[in-house]
Amino acid sequence: MKPNFLSKMGRRTGVPPISWLMQTALTRPKLISLAAGFTDNATLPVELSRKLLNDILRSPKTGQPALQYGITAGEMNLRTLTAKHLQKLDGGHDRAHSPERVIITGGSQQLLYMTLEALCDEGDIILVEDPTYFVFLSILESRGIQARGVKLERDGLDLVHLEKVLERLKKSDELRRVKALYLVTYFQNPTGATTSLAKKSAVLKLLKKFERAAGHPLYLLEDAAYRELRFDHGEDVPTALTLPGAERVIYTGTYSKPFATGVRVGFGILPEPLYTAVLRIKGNHDFGTANLLQQLLVGALASGLYDRHVAKVRKNYARKARVMKQALAEHFPANVEIWESGGGLYFWARLPKEISTGVKSKVFQAALKYDVLYVPGELCYADDPPRAKPDHEMRISFGSASEENIRTGIARLGRVLKKFVK
Amino acid sequence: MKPNFLSKMGRRTGVPPISWLMQTALTRPKLISLAAGFTDNATLPVELSRKLLNDILRSPKTGQPALQYGITAGEMNLRTLTAKHLQKLDGGHDRAHSPERVIITGGSQQLLYMTLEALCDEGDIILVEDPTYFVFLSILESRGIQARGVKLERDGLDLVHLEKVLERLKKSDELRRVKALYLVTYFQNPTGATTSLAKKSAVLKLLKKFERAAGHPLYLLEDAAYRELRFDHGEDVPTALTLPGAERVIYTGTYSKPFATGVRVGFGILPEPLYTAVLRIKGNHDFGTANLLQQLLVGALASGLYDRHVAKVRKNYARKARVMKQALAEHFPANVEIWESGGGLYFWARLPKEISTGVKSKVFQAALKYDVLYVPGELCYADDPPRAKPDHEMRISFGSASEENIRTGIARLGRVLKKFVK
Repeated sequence: MKPNFLSKMGRRTGVPPISWLMQTALTRPKLISLAAGFTDNATLPVELSRKLLNDILRSPKTGQPALQYGITAGEMNLRTLTAKHLQKLDGGHDRAHSPERVIITGGSQQLLYMTLEALCDEGDIILVEDPTYFVFLSILESRGIQARGVKLERDGLDLVHLEKVLERLKKSDELRRVKALYLVTYFQNPTGATTSLAKKSAVLKLLKKFERAAGHPLYLLEDAAYRELRFDHGEDVPTALTLPGAERVIYTGTYSKPFATGVRVGFGILPEPLYTAVLRIKGNHDFGTANLLQQLLVGALASGLYDRHVAKVRKNYARKARVMKQALAEHFPANVEIWESGGGLYFWARLPKEISTGVKSKVFQAALKYDVLYVPGELCYADDPPRAKPDHEMRISFGSASEENIRTGIARLGRVLKKFVK
Repeated sequence: MKPNFLSKMGRRTGVPPISWLMQTALTRPKLISLAAGFTDNATLPVELSRKLLNDILRSPKTGQPALQYGITAGEMNLRTLTAKHLQKLDGGHDRAHSPERVIITGGSQQLLYMTLEALCDEGDIILVEDPTYFVFLSILESRGIQARGVKLERDGLDLVHLEKVLERLKKSDELRRVKALYLVTYFQNPTGATTSLAKKSAVLKLLKKFERAAGHPLYLLEDAAYRELRFDHGEDVPTALTLPGAERVIYTGTYSKPFATGVRVGFGILPEPLYTAVLRIKGNHDFGTANLLQQLLVGALASGLYDRHVAKVRKNYARKARVMKQALAEHFPANVEIWESGGGLYFWARLPKEISTGVKSKVFQAALKYDVLYVPGELCYADDPPRAKPDHEMRISFGSASEENIRTGIARLGRVLKKFVK
């Protein structure tokens, strides 16, 4: 029972699953965590950051501005470099990549939070992938925003299902409460799936088609947090910002994951009137992300050392993903379906439907006993009755574990699964 | 007209006065700003930060954790040092100074924001000083929280008025919507006033007295952002955390202003159930403030170099405050009442009541023409009808201007005032 003098938000906000999983890891020192979304310590740019910070702090001329307040939207040099960086990733396409529309935030998480503040009242609806990023679901729950899940395929949303969900919302007169569709478009958390450009385009068209019935814009909130952690040899997929209909796209990216998670700098590109609304809200949150971190990224991006660092990071994850793939082939029962990913930090394992992987399941408890942790798939599904939450999946990460721990962890998990999966 | 598909918050959130003032300063390069709440560039710890960051990033052992995610509440070493630091400031008093109750935030601004999220629904009421910190008022407005002003004297709240306001709210059956009283207790923004310990104690007792009628706790939200910028030779005032009734105190402090505003690290000490509620909300905002900044402060605090730096900063502001005091004596009309401060960044000037200093006033426009900027007092007053907002005051800052600019700026402002004040 939470005391009723807290706000509705204060009462609604639950224990984030992420904290619970982190804490479990901390209390069992021998545990191998394949749950954490941490990046690999070994690839963190310690020496590079030292060099760049030394350059910034060598003279008062560059050191003082880095240690002083800046402006709420973020330093113009970082916003310009960010727009250019995205242009390059998007193959020179520069529609909608203006620094004037970039806002620098405390990780992309803060951008997601503020976008929901600007867009949604209690009772509004956001469409999400089924499954999706669980901290995003926590924000929705905390703010009293409802989620509707749309089936996910390996190349993005199930378009037939999306249309069906929109039709159903239209019929029940709920469409006017729908504000946006949230997609993690690159190496999705938790499944590793990447949305194809064709699907992004189809999604924008579908949303547009339902705008008249909604009575307002239906935005596509494109979360590209894992985009730069591509390690396969496929082509990078351009953002929805490059497509017709881009005026409905809110794009969010981050430097945290490719560069350093301890340097929490993310960014968003937003259309008006959302840009201005989010900027004002950021003025109330913190009136600007720490300048020292922003200047560190300016140094990295402007020198080209950022790109060199990211190339190294990718090679490392490629190797670790390969190790995980081999271990899975060796240790997992053959009827567990694995979604491998060409980037990011996660593989997705789908057990036969009747076998639960949830926190209270025999599988999870046995895994804990064997000192190995994964993220139960059910945590990544929105509350969207009457659709039952699937609970036969697991997110397994090769992000922070060493190669040896990946091998051992997967072997342990395999041993557990072989007990339960025939 | 803001589009109605934005959330109520999105529509309510206005242009922050702070951005407007900053922008005005940027577009007039010759302007002397006595408006900005920036700290002095000359005292920013450029060399010191370089040394400390080099120490952290010299080896992977200390460098990697600084560049990795941490926990949402903040690193335990910083929380422990923060609790100790406060204990020292509070004269060894250690009631309620436990690291377990400390949360590290992106400046103390973020703590204020999240505390209001945890505590207040739309329509709730927060009592504030009249005048108070204007960004706090922006948060209230954005979240649909009402403010009631309580008269401020040079040693803190007018206690008789506080009791009257509480009585009136009780009579009108609004007390159940009152959640907290917000005080900037040290070298207040905008007036420079410091709340005496006797008044803190009386305020806690008064709040307690009305709790039964409210039906829930009435918190004292103590904002100590300027505490460490004391430069007179008076004694530091202990926090309300040291008093009986401390279980109702939410304390917020910051390292930004004494150390570096570009290193946005603040903190809060909160009682349960607020601590847990705010921590969960922080999990949704950003799941933790950038570790690199936290470790920089750990280095500064643990080595004692933080204290040495702050001592230097204080000397600098003492000198600049002296310069401003002399310039005011020389240039301002004698019937302008000046509230000098023994710390912080601001003096407060009170003109005769009939002379407006607001953004549209002749005084403000003439000052702009003379290329000098101040913060109009009216911006610091809550919307609290039928009490009319006083608009005959100005906040003048000696924080970021050079000594020469303080002299010139005050001389210009004096010339303006002599036109309007007889």
